[in-house]
Amino acid sequence: MRPIDTAHNAANAAAKVLMKYFTTGTSMRAKRGDEVPYDLVSDADLEAERTIAAVIRESFPDHTILGEEEESGSIDAEHLWIIDPLDGTNNFAHALPNFASSIAYYEQGQPICGVVDAPALNERFEAERDGGARRNAEIIHCGRQTRLDQVLIGCGFYYDRGDMMRATLATVESLFGQNIHGIRRIGSAALDICHVAAGRFGAFFEYQLSPWDFAAARLILEEAGGQVTDCAGDSLPLAKTSLLASNGHLHQTMVALTTPGQRSVAVPDHAN
Amino acid sequence: MRPIDTAHNAANAAAKVLMKYFTTGTSMRAKRGDEVPYDLVSDADLEAERTIAAVIRESFPDHTILGEEEESGSIDAEHLWIIDPLDGTNNFAHALPNFASSIAYYEQGQPICGVVDAPALNERFEAERDGGARRNAEIIHCGRQTRLDQVLIGCGFYYDRGDMMRATLATVESLFGQNIHGIRRIGSAALDICHVAAGRFGAFFEYQLSPWDFAAARLILEEAGGQVTDCAGDSLPLAKTSLLASNGHLHQTMVALTTPGQRSVAVPDHAN
Repeated sequence: MRPIDTAHNAANAAAKVLMKYFTTGTSMRAKRGDEVPYDLVSDADLEAERTIAAVIRESFPDHTILGEEEESGSIDAEHLWIIDPLDGTNNFAHALPNFASSIAYYEQGQPICGVVDAPALNERFEAERDGGARRNAEIIHCGRQTRLDQVLIGCGFYYDRGDMMRATLATVESLFGQNIHGIRRIGSAALDICHVAAGRFGAFFEYQLSPWDFAAARLILEEAGGQVTDCAGDSLPLAKTSLLASNGHLHQTMVALTTPGQRSVAVPDHAN
Repeated sequence: MRPIDTAHNAANAAAKVLMKYFTTGTSMRAKRGDEVPYDLVSDADLEAERTIAAVIRESFPDHTILGEEEESGSIDAEHLWIIDPLDGTNNFAHALPNFASSIAYYEQGQPICGVVDAPALNERFEAERDGGARRNAEIIHCGRQTRLDQVLIGCGFYYDRGDMMRATLATVESLFGQNIHGIRRIGSAALDICHVAAGRFGAFFEYQLSPWDFAAARLILEEAGGQVTDCAGDSLPLAKTSLLASNGHLHQTMVALTTPGQRSVAVPDHAN
């Protein structure tokens, strides 16, 4: 079995788990007018990770797995799966459909294939190295816009509510100063990077992310013709890092706008 | 025929028009990697408004219609339909599914029924006065959260890129200072207000909106148990205005945070 087939099978299995909890949580909320209990969200997260890991191990028992939850394989492993069972946890908890599972396979530190699956939106993004990027099995490309006044820009706010939040807001203000079509904050970095790949956003930035947030989506973006670096324009490490994803044409323009924020926050230690 | 039935029929007809253009635009984008041409978006907007107006006139030939595009009936009419054929135009243009048509019926300035329909998301919100609010035919309620650290907050940025943009960013910063779960900027005020009604957001604010943006959603919110005022906590005029929608429990807390922004921007003239 090819790794991409395994990634799809794992995404299918995770989607069933996530939708089971999402439906239960949403109807609990509808009945009680209350928030979805966080232990239910954690249960969904954990069960989805275990499900994904089990599918991968069935096909590739010798491979290493690194996940956001329990799986703690080394990032330096030769055959490495990097998984986030539930990106957009906060949306999931608040009954918004913008959440996804992210499943990527890397060999010697290089991305080979990736799937980002958003079951409540009926959207699956995928890519194989040198094989192009797809949304629901159809080829997608980044936009070709060369000016910021032609695009929407996505942004993310790390959990930090101090310097990093202020740096993000300052960058948003400087983007408005460039007359962007609009800013979007949807709440799932994996999906936001895929929105750049699908030409919906001209770019997306966030001042701190972890490898599982972007491991799959960065390949989908690159295969769609886009570019990804850290927010200062340096090559993206497979580690905790800032991230700037763009359609390529807008990359240098965006780097100029995201670099000041990058410099104003604590430099990520590039360890995970 | 009851007005709510007419509103549903009009929403069904508008959905067909919008999805036809959305699919065409999205596949043009996919083929050419380009933005959706704005004349196509305008065509969708205009054709959807004409379609909605035709359905209304068939049932209620003597009623007045006020729309964002061509229909310019007086806001003071005794029997008034207020329609926005395409809220979230920018999302529609950039192939994001978060757009909706909004159809409301008012008698002597009071909301009688409203429908907000998001065909690309398969979500329809509706309410009749004193009849509760529904999402896809199921009753919905606002959340019962009483603290900002329990909720997501939605915000909107008016097209203005000056004082109003800065006021919005300042309010977002003060919300983060209250440790909110997260900020969201999805890009359709009508849908965002419905997200409060469905318990997904604790509140939503925007410093300038027009009656067609909120005419239907405000009734849906109120019927779901929520509260809507302008951003200074005063009663919402059926006019160009700032808007604060909340689950009710959070309203005074939010008013304290949105009022400074309201005061820092030009006071809306409350004319449309």
